[in-house]
Amino acid sequence: MNNDLILLGHGSGGNLSHQLLEELLIPTLSGEGMAQRNDAALLELAGQRLAFSTDSYVVEPLFFPGGCIGDLAVNGTVNDLAMMGATPLWLSCAMIIEEGFSRQKLAEVATAMRVAADLAGVKIVTGDTKVVPRGKADGLFINTSGIGVIRHDLRIDGTRARPGDRIIVSGTIGDHGIAVMAAREGLELESGVRSDSAPLNGLVADLLAAGGDTVHVLRDPTRGGVATTVKEIALQSGVDVTLDEASLPLTAGVKGVCSILGLDPLYVANEGKLLAFVAPERAVELLAMVRNHPLGKDAAIIGEVTKIGTGKVRMLTSVGGFRGVEMLAGEQLPRIC
Amino acid sequence: MNNDLILLGHGSGGNLSHQLLEELLIPTLSGEGMAQRNDAALLELAGQRLAFSTDSYVVEPLFFPGGCIGDLAVNGTVNDLAMMGATPLWLSCAMIIEEGFSRQKLAEVATAMRVAADLAGVKIVTGDTKVVPRGKADGLFINTSGIGVIRHDLRIDGTRARPGDRIIVSGTIGDHGIAVMAAREGLELESGVRSDSAPLNGLVADLLAAGGDTVHVLRDPTRGGVATTVKEIALQSGVDVTLDEASLPLTAGVKGVCSILGLDPLYVANEGKLLAFVAPERAVELLAMVRNHPLGKDAAIIGEVTKIGTGKVRMLTSVGGFRGVEMLAGEQLPRIC
Repeated sequence: MNNDLILLGHGSGGNLSHQLLEELLIPTLSGEGMAQRNDAALLELAGQRLAFSTDSYVVEPLFFPGGCIGDLAVNGTVNDLAMMGATPLWLSCAMIIEEGFSRQKLAEVATAMRVAADLAGVKIVTGDTKVVPRGKADGLFINTSGIGVIRHDLRIDGTRARPGDRIIVSGTIGDHGIAVMAAREGLELESGVRSDSAPLNGLVADLLAAGGDTVHVLRDPTRGGVATTVKEIALQSGVDVTLDEASLPLTAGVKGVCSILGLDPLYVANEGKLLAFVAPERAVELLAMVRNHPLGKDAAIIGEVTKIGTGKVRMLTSVGGFRGVEMLAGEQLPRIC
Repeated sequence: MNNDLILLGHGSGGNLSHQLLEELLIPTLSGEGMAQRNDAALLELAGQRLAFSTDSYVVEPLFFPGGCIGDLAVNGTVNDLAMMGATPLWLSCAMIIEEGFSRQKLAEVATAMRVAADLAGVKIVTGDTKVVPRGKADGLFINTSGIGVIRHDLRIDGTRARPGDRIIVSGTIGDHGIAVMAAREGLELESGVRSDSAPLNGLVADLLAAGGDTVHVLRDPTRGGVATTVKEIALQSGVDVTLDEASLPLTAGVKGVCSILGLDPLYVANEGKLLAFVAPERAVELLAMVRNHPLGKDAAIIGEVTKIGTGKVRMLTSVGGFRGVEMLAGEQLPRIC
């Protein structure tokens, strides 16, 4: 019977989300761009390649250590464009506001959006505002859509991982999701964890300038975390991957909250981190370059593509065994972004 | 004290919406596109003019005579692009779904989106799905953003109305808003009113091909209705306008529901109608052309720009007097789109 109803897990970014997209939304809405299954659609206009992406933000609470829904809404869409190798140029901003929402808080959110847009070098050029009666929404939801331009001939997408590729993560994992959960549970002061919400377009530009076509795949591990994102890429590229648990960069704060709340940081959302699948001969050099960037100082190589395969991902555990890594099942952390 | 809170009227498209945009959102978010104050931002990329627009749809009920949130979400954004004289090409689709929503209804909405997209000749190329817990949203909200390309040298925008211009409306007014209200009040069968939800890009292409630079302003009178839209344009262009009440095309059904519910159809939303401000020497010919289009058979000239002015709009009433026409004050019909 529950098959007939939409569940929280359908918004998780994990298994159920994929099912809903593959069985219903993508075939019905169609469109080649959705069929590409990347962070943004790749479009062509007058010989120019464009990237186009959309995301709605429903994070709860609206303000959390390290950010708020405003900078999240800008950074999230900027990053989706950057992961296609695009230079983000323009964003839209559409707000759905619950009647009775504080005008002061709205101003704070709008200011955070502007600051984030300036930092990322994008302009918010068009918008929409809807207000729904009390109880019909939860404070504030924001959609941003973004347009970027691809100023090089590289093809960066989820199908291009190949055997030997090393997987670089640009920093510690799980910070955003844990900061939001800690805020929700009243643990934010003890944990000291802050969201990593940040625009990655500058880091991507550096990576592509240095790495060129040795950079095969870029993706930001948001909903579903590093585990789900690596599994998606492995499936898209038809390769098998091994991750190394001991090399995963993690702060003590994230470790602590994860153990209190029983969460696996590999499945927790990040909002200012990227995964790069790069050719092995350049991996160490590119890692060093990422570490020199202000947003990449804790970067690490966390695994590699072992062979052409069926999308299997396994983890070499800290105690020396292997375990399978699957997409997030169900909904671990609702409303994390 | 209420100054501190967001009211339903801030989403009306009328007076309060304009205040919120002008005092808070536009100055804070900035961006030249928003400052243009048209239905879409006008952008330039590699010598090509683009239009970019966004709208969230929160209509209640989701299904109403003549349409549903799905076709509305496609047509609304297609029309915003068309009103800039752009050829709409690509849409994004971001859904916020309440936990427990019917998967069957979601499929119906997605199908309606696809049918509408095919009819308008646009592709849905990228998307996002969020699910929020029960009680945190109302069924389904949809955001669509759209990109169009401007394939001519005409400048169509709200600042270009000039003395002498005739105002063409492409058909009967108030149908969408009244269809939704009637559905909400259980009056839909008696009234027989159906939403006019339709894509106007084909009609616009015909108008521009025939009228060229004698077409000065195009805008679709959605939230706030014809009254608010004409007032906006008069203010943007710095002209005064006179409307002729007797010439407003209205169905008997809309008249009937308006009198039952005490509504003024001039303030009721349309979703498949446009206003065109055109040079007087071509007005009758262009009117005839619009009437020959399947979406324009009830078109009429409903007024004219009288002089350079301060944005005053007045109505020659059916009984022969004049009354001032202002923007929608407060919120007449919440959640109409």
